[in-house]
Amino acid sequence: MTEIALHNYFRSSTSYRVRIALEMKGLDYKYVAHHLRHGEHREPAYLAVNPQGLVPALVWTDGTLLLQSLAIMEFLDETVPEPPLLPADPLGRARVRMLSQMIACDIHPVNNLRVLTSLRALYGAGDDDIANWFRHWVNETFEPLEKILASSPQTGTFCHGDNPGIADICLVAQVANNQRFHVDMRPYPVIARINVACMELPAFRKAAPANQPDAE
Amino acid sequence: MTEIALHNYFRSSTSYRVRIALEMKGLDYKYVAHHLRHGEHREPAYLAVNPQGLVPALVWTDGTLLLQSLAIMEFLDETVPEPPLLPADPLGRARVRMLSQMIACDIHPVNNLRVLTSLRALYGAGDDDIANWFRHWVNETFEPLEKILASSPQTGTFCHGDNPGIADICLVAQVANNQRFHVDMRPYPVIARINVACMELPAFRKAAPANQPDAE
Repeated sequence: MTEIALHNYFRSSTSYRVRIALEMKGLDYKYVAHHLRHGEHREPAYLAVNPQGLVPALVWTDGTLLLQSLAIMEFLDETVPEPPLLPADPLGRARVRMLSQMIACDIHPVNNLRVLTSLRALYGAGDDDIANWFRHWVNETFEPLEKILASSPQTGTFCHGDNPGIADICLVAQVANNQRFHVDMRPYPVIARINVACMELPAFRKAAPANQPDAE
Repeated sequence: MTEIALHNYFRSSTSYRVRIALEMKGLDYKYVAHHLRHGEHREPAYLAVNPQGLVPALVWTDGTLLLQSLAIMEFLDETVPEPPLLPADPLGRARVRMLSQMIACDIHPVNNLRVLTSLRALYGAGDDDIANWFRHWVNETFEPLEKILASSPQTGTFCHGDNPGIADICLVAQVANNQRFHVDMRPYPVIARINVACMELPAFRKAAPANQPDAE
């Protein structure tokens, strides 16, 4: 019997992050799909498990609930140390968390499906407005992110040195999301290069949206 | 000579988080104010230090730059262990990070000044629209946050047991922000009680927006 269930949605980039981390750590999990566009995450049965009604959520067979992709990834890293998703030194760890949070706090939440849906409902935003909004917030953070990555000797094959970690996971999930809104990646050669390096790794490919059971 | 400078703004709730953590750890820092409403964070001199042009930013005298309030707080906690801002056990740490990120990822970014300014500029949102938007996203997360806190035996005087930590810091900064938009706190008695408990502590009071040199 599988001990952990991941409540998620193939296209959710925060779910994608957790899937990559689970694959990197070699952990088996039960895939529970909630179709966000059909509102399946707001059904009473799921709200009884996860009162926030969002994905991803990690749920153990004893009912223990863990929300928030960054918190989940740090938990996996603390309990299954190999391969590490964070460097060993405090300043390196801080740098990786900073890079991760530039994406996880400054891009993703503002471009999340529920926010885009609100812009349509409250302000009559159309498809072009939504795409412009999405690209604006990506570019606002990708510009400094590219500068920070390009100017630092700590950047290697991946965001921090030559081993993939939490920042790379956030980067890949964001770049995948960007493709749906045709974000021009030409101004971001370092980000694009890191994304390619990650996608050569089996864990990243296996966790990709297109390879999930609920993919459309 | 003070070794670290905190680039911040009295009213920024992410700056407030870092100020509380610095006070709790007993660290001296140089306060560098950037008036966000006057666009001082987008001036070339600051962009040369911090390419993202946001606050808070921690900058050492050697030029080392650290962004993102959660990353900064975890760094402070790893380098100045007492008093701890996270519990010792992995599941406890995950719970505190989860509670923190519910606020830091699901509320704050969507209600940030730059997003509210965009709603005005792009969609002609007025003061009432802005206040409704702000309260909507607070309530969307405070409802499950209250449930999670109220139903868990791990909740104590503070979010996790009887010592304040990162989740309490995020909670206090959010509640302070809420006051500007008159969020009704009556549905959130546990959150309100924890806020009161925190505000009895000198570190939280000293770091409060009204007590900063750039307060208006």
